[in-house]
Amino acid sequence: MVETESRGAGRRRAGGRGAKSAAAAATSAVKQLPRGAVRNPVNPIEPLSADQVETIHHASLKILSEIGMEFLGEHAKAILREAGADVRADSNLVRFDPAMVEERIKTAPSSFKLHARNPARTVTLGEADIHFVPVASAPNASDADGGRRQGNREDFRNLTRLIQSLHCLSFIPGYPVEPTDIDRRTRHLEAMRDFALLTDMAFHNYSLGPQRTADGLEIAKIVRGGISDAQLAAEPSLLTIVNTNSPLKLDSPMGHGIIQHALHGQISVITPFTLAGAMAPVTLAGALAQQNAEFLAGLTLAQCAKPGAPVIYGGFTSNVDMKSGAPAFGTPEYVKAVQAGGQLTRRYGVPYRSSGVCAANMPDAQAALETQMSLWGTMTGGADMVMHAAGWMEGGLSASFEKMVMDADMIQMLQAYMQPIEVSEATLGLDAIAEVGPGGHFFGTPQTMERFETAFYAPMLSDWRNFETWAEDGSKTAYERANTLYKQLLAEYQEPAIDEATRDALNDFVDRRIDEGGSFDDD
Amino acid sequence: MVETESRGAGRRRAGGRGAKSAAAAATSAVKQLPRGAVRNPVNPIEPLSADQVETIHHASLKILSEIGMEFLGEHAKAILREAGADVRADSNLVRFDPAMVEERIKTAPSSFKLHARNPARTVTLGEADIHFVPVASAPNASDADGGRRQGNREDFRNLTRLIQSLHCLSFIPGYPVEPTDIDRRTRHLEAMRDFALLTDMAFHNYSLGPQRTADGLEIAKIVRGGISDAQLAAEPSLLTIVNTNSPLKLDSPMGHGIIQHALHGQISVITPFTLAGAMAPVTLAGALAQQNAEFLAGLTLAQCAKPGAPVIYGGFTSNVDMKSGAPAFGTPEYVKAVQAGGQLTRRYGVPYRSSGVCAANMPDAQAALETQMSLWGTMTGGADMVMHAAGWMEGGLSASFEKMVMDADMIQMLQAYMQPIEVSEATLGLDAIAEVGPGGHFFGTPQTMERFETAFYAPMLSDWRNFETWAEDGSKTAYERANTLYKQLLAEYQEPAIDEATRDALNDFVDRRIDEGGSFDDD
Repeated sequence: MVETESRGAGRRRAGGRGAKSAAAAATSAVKQLPRGAVRNPVNPIEPLSADQVETIHHASLKILSEIGMEFLGEHAKAILREAGADVRADSNLVRFDPAMVEERIKTAPSSFKLHARNPARTVTLGEADIHFVPVASAPNASDADGGRRQGNREDFRNLTRLIQSLHCLSFIPGYPVEPTDIDRRTRHLEAMRDFALLTDMAFHNYSLGPQRTADGLEIAKIVRGGISDAQLAAEPSLLTIVNTNSPLKLDSPMGHGIIQHALHGQISVITPFTLAGAMAPVTLAGALAQQNAEFLAGLTLAQCAKPGAPVIYGGFTSNVDMKSGAPAFGTPEYVKAVQAGGQLTRRYGVPYRSSGVCAANMPDAQAALETQMSLWGTMTGGADMVMHAAGWMEGGLSASFEKMVMDADMIQMLQAYMQPIEVSEATLGLDAIAEVGPGGHFFGTPQTMERFETAFYAPMLSDWRNFETWAEDGSKTAYERANTLYKQLLAEYQEPAIDEATRDALNDFVDRRIDEGGSFDDD
Repeated sequence: MVETESRGAGRRRAGGRGAKSAAAAATSAVKQLPRGAVRNPVNPIEPLSADQVETIHHASLKILSEIGMEFLGEHAKAILREAGADVRADSNLVRFDPAMVEERIKTAPSSFKLHARNPARTVTLGEADIHFVPVASAPNASDADGGRRQGNREDFRNLTRLIQSLHCLSFIPGYPVEPTDIDRRTRHLEAMRDFALLTDMAFHNYSLGPQRTADGLEIAKIVRGGISDAQLAAEPSLLTIVNTNSPLKLDSPMGHGIIQHALHGQISVITPFTLAGAMAPVTLAGALAQQNAEFLAGLTLAQCAKPGAPVIYGGFTSNVDMKSGAPAFGTPEYVKAVQAGGQLTRRYGVPYRSSGVCAANMPDAQAALETQMSLWGTMTGGADMVMHAAGWMEGGLSASFEKMVMDADMIQMLQAYMQPIEVSEATLGLDAIAEVGPGGHFFGTPQTMERFETAFYAPMLSDWRNFETWAEDGSKTAYERANTLYKQLLAEYQEPAIDEATRDALNDFVDRRIDEGGSFDDD
């Protein structure tokens, strides 16, 4: 899969690849669940009592009114001052009256769509569906063949292709790996072009300054078929992850992202980076109160900029290893924080973003067990959007090709689990039980024969052969099988069809902006 | 750990080992959670509606009244005939009137204790606690050094020592691996002596014929300090796993086990072996109806033998791989069956046994992800007793030393997760948040310093060091670390103290029964 393409290459190749029919995908050797939204039927697990939720909520309001939060960037401070927050002239500290925050919570919508260029891949956030989305913003990529290396465009594009190939993933919440070999000024342009051409899903717009954000808004309008500003505002087509600089600080580009996305009707996922013991109190209650305060500050900025702006509550509270200060993920405390964060989110009536994360350094049993802890936390915590759910490793420092397909199998297992048990005369099967009788077997009954191909989830990765057969075949670990599997998916990858005019318009815009030098926001 | 001890060796060594003080254990390099019961605060996840539970219940009664269940063994048939079941003279088929089953459900107790020789290790089943217990009855053992080998006494004893060493495990539900190098006639005697001397936990009594079961009852009285039959009957100290021979058949030794345990007040865990698509219908509803019917038949036998006999509902429904017929575990269907089985169990008001299982052939990511699926199913399904929760591999065909400690770490993670979030002025930490202020960090705050040693779960196995440090240290996988860890635990193992008179009485009984030739039940 070695590629040395430079900009514009997408245009030249797309026709050839896109021309391949979708029929080939249907005959793929890799069996996946069908694409589409999955309803989560699980009543959320709630580790906090209703009183405890209120106590944490009020502690957050107290933090915002008595301690305050720092906003870097004059635009954010101006909007908040205008809306009645206490913003001192000589300081970045903003204090919020509790009543002001309570009022702003009311205008945040409880659900909204995220529109993709392929309408079949538009998703709804904030209703009953749970969406799993891949790793984002890893500085390194890794696989068994090439080991761990700095993020580059080849890996970026292959991971993006893999994301498109995996049915269980809903949209793209950021660069799966940072393509550091693309100049920083034009990286967002090249990367979003890749997203638009290599996939047909909705994608992410980094809050890295007003110019980049504006480029993203233009690209979204183009890939949606040349829609107007008004239609874009009515049909959210981009999301931006806004991380606070915990504790209690919002950097200028992040504030700009919230404001611009709010003004243009696009989604902000406000995600405090509250690692208990480091950037937040060592106690979960304290870390949650701080997370909640920082989220509410971001929500308030968005709603002051534009009432009704779509925001998502991003919960990311985990803990550090107190021996080393290293962040830990998929821990017991992480799961509790995920579920408690879901309770707080439901109090505010907005969608909830959580994450499928781990601290492991390779896709071994540690990676699987920590990721499963996280994923179960998100599913039982009522998350609408599960970020980093496929491919995330090393606490986010690496995107692994093997782990991406390993995680996809876990996600599919959860998706299959969420399908209801059908109880009917036919499924109770008393006729089959009577026919087989005591001591018989069900392999050949009509009930079995009618259903055997679809009755059970067929895993992509798990090897269920007996020990002897497995050993004769080389005793391959799940990691080795994942290596084969991701390459098979890449070999079968097909670029999704795109309207010719849309592609031309996209390339024209991106090429022009690159010729202009890209973004000068960092200067 | 090579051992070539023959019978009686336990006596010679116990004094020396037992004499070592417990203080050494306190200084172990392996940090574990404290021993003790863990309350499960999770409201069970219920995939079935209340109506669906009733529908499955009534389907089970219909199976028992219209199709019937085969009971091999005259004693069971006589008891059931006496109690009013329809038992034909020329057949083993027993049909149960629904009203009879409903009546018998009423006499089954909702909770009871399982007494250990160390009173601190007595457990309660059927209340709020969740008990994790190790793999049982694996025919093979495996570790990285010796590979996979047929079960033998050395591995049996080392696994038993490991079970005693792992704080998270509550009691012994069977031989962790079958010690096939001990003669079948005396195996139960040697193995139960090992359980009694190498651990201080309650243990299992195999239903392999009346003579073996009776030996187990004698041993239990001795190890409990020479208690009477009446005290044993009042204080259950043994459990026996009763597997039906699905579909709808109970073999003679299993029936004897239920009857003898009922008559002596000991516990029967009635566990139908309903693999959907093979020994049960391919549909979950059908497999659950059959599981439930077989359980109710066993419960009815126990309650007819002795009203009030302690029984546990054993749910084991999983599915087979329809391509190969191989059993699969930790699947989406398995998790649904675990949770639905919990619902049925709660309808009957008895304790629930489920399992932490997988189909993987080695302790890799597949093993971890399948086992996590199972364990989350049991915790969210309301299980009182989670069998095979540590060390089970290959669908039960192998007990792995490495997987046992890997699973113990997962169990401890769940145990830590089940601890409540403390919400108080002190844990909300607003003083710490004010003191640190925007942009600071919490590493040195008094709140952190007071709590950093105990704030978070410290894993036994997960390596949270950064990639570079981990790579410099040899890039060890979780499997390799588990190998080191289990050997460390075995090196630190200490035989628990036992009363001298009790040990002598135990050895006298076992040695006498061995001299008599052991059990002739198989002849």
